[in-house]
Amino acid sequence: MSSSVTKGRLYGVGLGPGDPELVTLKSLKAVQSAPVVAWFAKRGKKGHARTIAEGMIPEGSIELSLIYPVTTEIPHTDPEYNRQLAAFYDEASALLADHLEAGRDVALLCEGDPLFYGSFMHPYMRLKDRYDVTICPGVTGMSGCWTANGVPMTWGDDVLSILPGTLPSDELTKRLDLADAVVVMKLGKNFQKVRNVIEKKGLLQRSFYIERGTMTGEIVMPLADKTDGVAPYFSMIIIPGEGRRPE
Amino acid sequence: MSSSVTKGRLYGVGLGPGDPELVTLKSLKAVQSAPVVAWFAKRGKKGHARTIAEGMIPEGSIELSLIYPVTTEIPHTDPEYNRQLAAFYDEASALLADHLEAGRDVALLCEGDPLFYGSFMHPYMRLKDRYDVTICPGVTGMSGCWTANGVPMTWGDDVLSILPGTLPSDELTKRLDLADAVVVMKLGKNFQKVRNVIEKKGLLQRSFYIERGTMTGEIVMPLADKTDGVAPYFSMIIIPGEGRRPE
Repeated sequence: MSSSVTKGRLYGVGLGPGDPELVTLKSLKAVQSAPVVAWFAKRGKKGHARTIAEGMIPEGSIELSLIYPVTTEIPHTDPEYNRQLAAFYDEASALLADHLEAGRDVALLCEGDPLFYGSFMHPYMRLKDRYDVTICPGVTGMSGCWTANGVPMTWGDDVLSILPGTLPSDELTKRLDLADAVVVMKLGKNFQKVRNVIEKKGLLQRSFYIERGTMTGEIVMPLADKTDGVAPYFSMIIIPGEGRRPE
Repeated sequence: MSSSVTKGRLYGVGLGPGDPELVTLKSLKAVQSAPVVAWFAKRGKKGHARTIAEGMIPEGSIELSLIYPVTTEIPHTDPEYNRQLAAFYDEASALLADHLEAGRDVALLCEGDPLFYGSFMHPYMRLKDRYDVTICPGVTGMSGCWTANGVPMTWGDDVLSILPGTLPSDELTKRLDLADAVVVMKLGKNFQKVRNVIEKKGLLQRSFYIERGTMTGEIVMPLADKTDGVAPYFSMIIIPGEGRRPE
């Protein structure tokens, strides 16, 4: 009997930076047509992706939340973090596979763009050889942030580097030296270190701090004015390029 | 009389990488509601942005094509290139301003994301202090390309660098040294130089060549297999990152 069932298709659904209006037609269709809608979230939270999709999920959809066992309680460098996360992604992939085996398409919701630092990539690597997959790219969180900032990000032949705030100061410095435009993500407790490096490089006056870009509670300010040293997960520093422009 | 007219609003409308399904709800609404729809194009061409928007523009809209006086006929380094382009952007901005002054909203169509290497930025800088502007971010062309490639682009703490193929070989090499994941744009006549640098760095087996990502005629192949040395404007080389992933 079960051999006659056509397997379901996995959709990696990029939902953009936060504003539901920034969802693409393709992603909206995937959310509306797949009988199963799944997403990752931290324990006790609704999840950013699920929040964006509010109002798009048809009544009667099967909703499947995949709750991280750990986020920042254990450092990323601890092997235990790795072990717990790997086991979690295996288990989450098995839950998704159950629906796919039963012939149900699954829309896995992703904030931003699925293949750009997305959790989607973990089940994707585990399932892509067994099931059909459609990836719906999305507007990235950084694009939402530089749009909120309203300053052109890259001109002409500008080099843009996207840097994690986790890099040590000397590594950040080396990369700032070779970039015209910069996005720094993963600020959190790295914020003050990153700001110090940017100030030392003389780039403070060109830099902006953006929090919750395109979302409720959006904050956009010159980095020079951000002196409290505190930056949540959904924040970025951006340094727009100043490259070739005919004027 | 004219002082009583409410000025129009300029919309910078990101239309994504090429597939019309990758347009956002916000951009679609802007195209459908603005009485004037404008776009940049090369002489004799429909224009990539206008092609994506085909079928979205309501009947009766005022359509305004802004035709570049020059594209690759004069090198970018020639002051004459700069002079002609600056004059063109001034003139294009004046045409847009005529509609805005008359109270008509203008949707300026942009392939990809308006603030990411977009021509939109030129009229934007000229008009933003005189008119209200709404920028609708879009899925970038590079995101369309790495989605077409189907390989996760950045993991964990990967550094992503976006490089123009116009950089000299030694400058490309320096930046490849400090990046985990790479996108090289503006290939064209720079293609073979870029490929040589990547091969010399031992990165050829990790690299992909993508042409017309998400569009009709899309080509995705390992860069190692791309041996003809010919790459059109809508092409990219991408080197996916291999960073932290719990498995």
